[in-house]
Amino acid sequence: MKSSPETNADRAFLDEARVLQALELAHLGLGMTSPNPPVGAVIYKGDKFLGGGYHHRAGEPHAERMALVNALERGHGADLNGATIYVTLEPCSSYGKTPPCTRGIIDAGIRRVVYGLVDPDERHRGRADALLKTEGIEVQGGVAEKACRAFLRPWLHTVRTGCPWVIAKMGATLDGRIVRWGNQHRVSGREALEYVHRLRLQSDAILVGGRTVRTDNPQLTIRFGVEIPEGKKQPWRVVLTQSMKNLPPDARIFTDEHSARTLVYERVDDFQGVLHELHEKYGVVTLLLECGGHLLREWLDRDLVQEWVQIVSPYIGGGSELLLSGNDLKIERQLFDAQIQKFGNDFVIRGLLNKEL
Amino acid sequence: MKSSPETNADRAFLDEARVLQALELAHLGLGMTSPNPPVGAVIYKGDKFLGGGYHHRAGEPHAERMALVNALERGHGADLNGATIYVTLEPCSSYGKTPPCTRGIIDAGIRRVVYGLVDPDERHRGRADALLKTEGIEVQGGVAEKACRAFLRPWLHTVRTGCPWVIAKMGATLDGRIVRWGNQHRVSGREALEYVHRLRLQSDAILVGGRTVRTDNPQLTIRFGVEIPEGKKQPWRVVLTQSMKNLPPDARIFTDEHSARTLVYERVDDFQGVLHELHEKYGVVTLLLECGGHLLREWLDRDLVQEWVQIVSPYIGGGSELLLSGNDLKIERQLFDAQIQKFGNDFVIRGLLNKEL
Repeated sequence: MKSSPETNADRAFLDEARVLQALELAHLGLGMTSPNPPVGAVIYKGDKFLGGGYHHRAGEPHAERMALVNALERGHGADLNGATIYVTLEPCSSYGKTPPCTRGIIDAGIRRVVYGLVDPDERHRGRADALLKTEGIEVQGGVAEKACRAFLRPWLHTVRTGCPWVIAKMGATLDGRIVRWGNQHRVSGREALEYVHRLRLQSDAILVGGRTVRTDNPQLTIRFGVEIPEGKKQPWRVVLTQSMKNLPPDARIFTDEHSARTLVYERVDDFQGVLHELHEKYGVVTLLLECGGHLLREWLDRDLVQEWVQIVSPYIGGGSELLLSGNDLKIERQLFDAQIQKFGNDFVIRGLLNKEL
Repeated sequence: MKSSPETNADRAFLDEARVLQALELAHLGLGMTSPNPPVGAVIYKGDKFLGGGYHHRAGEPHAERMALVNALERGHGADLNGATIYVTLEPCSSYGKTPPCTRGIIDAGIRRVVYGLVDPDERHRGRADALLKTEGIEVQGGVAEKACRAFLRPWLHTVRTGCPWVIAKMGATLDGRIVRWGNQHRVSGREALEYVHRLRLQSDAILVGGRTVRTDNPQLTIRFGVEIPEGKKQPWRVVLTQSMKNLPPDARIFTDEHSARTLVYERVDDFQGVLHELHEKYGVVTLLLECGGHLLREWLDRDLVQEWVQIVSPYIGGGSELLLSGNDLKIERQLFDAQIQKFGNDFVIRGLLNKEL
């Protein structure tokens, strides 16, 4: 029986909607899975939802396995035979810490696999398609790929460069003055602060300079009413300084209950090396820069920032420290895909520093 | 016959909707009517729209007269008897350059008058109500008053203080650097520039410092594809400087076709005096500050700015000049009712510098 064009259009629409549903699930793993990517999957038979899942953390089952288990738990095991699985990323086909997802899909009797992004890892790319097709399984990749790619930008960046995705985050008044957290002034309102702590939740590490440690004595932890999912550790707290000796030993990051999560690098001339090590040794995929205007300038000058998150608070004035230091600044960088959102009385401007990302 | 509660609610709803319709018309006069307020009016009989109008400019008929004339032009003269007029501001009751609107309303046989804002001018306030009621006309004031008041803020400010409403407008990069128009860089995109020129259209005067004249040689005219309504003059171009001798005589503002619209004040210590004169002598209701960061600071320090319009362009860096100069800035001012709009790639943040306004 030939399917009509309308049916094909309907199927394409459903495919996209369901990959996007899987992407919603993937968001639940954001910040939890490093160095793995956050991935989501859902399983349908016809119009019937059988199950869904997402990758919780490295070493645990991938999204496809989680969705299959969820279908069994929901009592839909018998329906899996002949069902379709929708995944945000091409399923893996090799043994890592867990058996390959293609194996699980084949064993479950899945008849069709629809996925978003083609795996950028050459060890996996296209192999899933071949493997699954050999088993008579229909495969369609590249569905809702743009959304899946945008979501996976940080991880894709690590695959490409071996370095974490760097998000520069700063808060300033309308005229670009930093109001330091250490002051009694808290220029950002509650909603914007919550946003920052959710950003920390999605990050693997937070980096500041020695100056920030000395001036603000920050905690650099996820707090502020943001619920930390089970198994999520506090982000690494990374200090970049000329010398360890410049840091007060009684600073909070050295003395609080998370002190084991603090790393100090006396390598102010080797940002790239620090980035590599953070990724290789600590599995950092997303690094949040929360430094002051001097160090931020250095990161921008070295072109090591991928994303920009600026909290603009509706105040004028606010001290002598600028969001970005230096008097010789030309227009150096443009923000692409800049979006703005209002949180309470504050605005958050977020965008990318490179067009192609 | 007693009207049911539903009918009263319906009537209140219609009253508000029609005052808001009149307010839409009032917007057409924005920037045209100084020193008078921009006012709009519509006339209905039952559900039938008879006519609408707005005050075009000082010396010409008020909105109520324009609406009555419009009703006649539309052939609804016979319907005016027993009709209702909706106005954004309490009708005037004294002879000025034109006969009082109350007279026109009475003569036309209008049976009911609904208006927004109570006239802040003590010569008029409440007198219309009394006059109209004497003639057996039903009067209801304060309908959609909040919207009418917000729209008339600049004019209300002049009534209260004798000084123009001052809007500080500046364009800067994300980090608060001014990119001067004189440079080849135009940091704001087309849509944001159009917004600025529409803002000029709604202003009676634009003020800069001598420094801006020397550095940028600006035209300070309404251009950029913004259509200038008939009868609208280019805004006054006001320069505040230590000495006239510091200004280049061949600057555009002195040599172009609008040179008669250029005013120079050698009174850098008497901002308030300049404001008073601009209002008294030149009828300025809205003054747009387009100065650099040094002079802007002075205006803020003297608490002479009422509204803030900041164009944030999605660039990082952009020269040494700050949006707001000075190293000793504490958090001095808050922006109230801050709103943000995207124009092309730029953001416009607009708000009020005093809560009560």
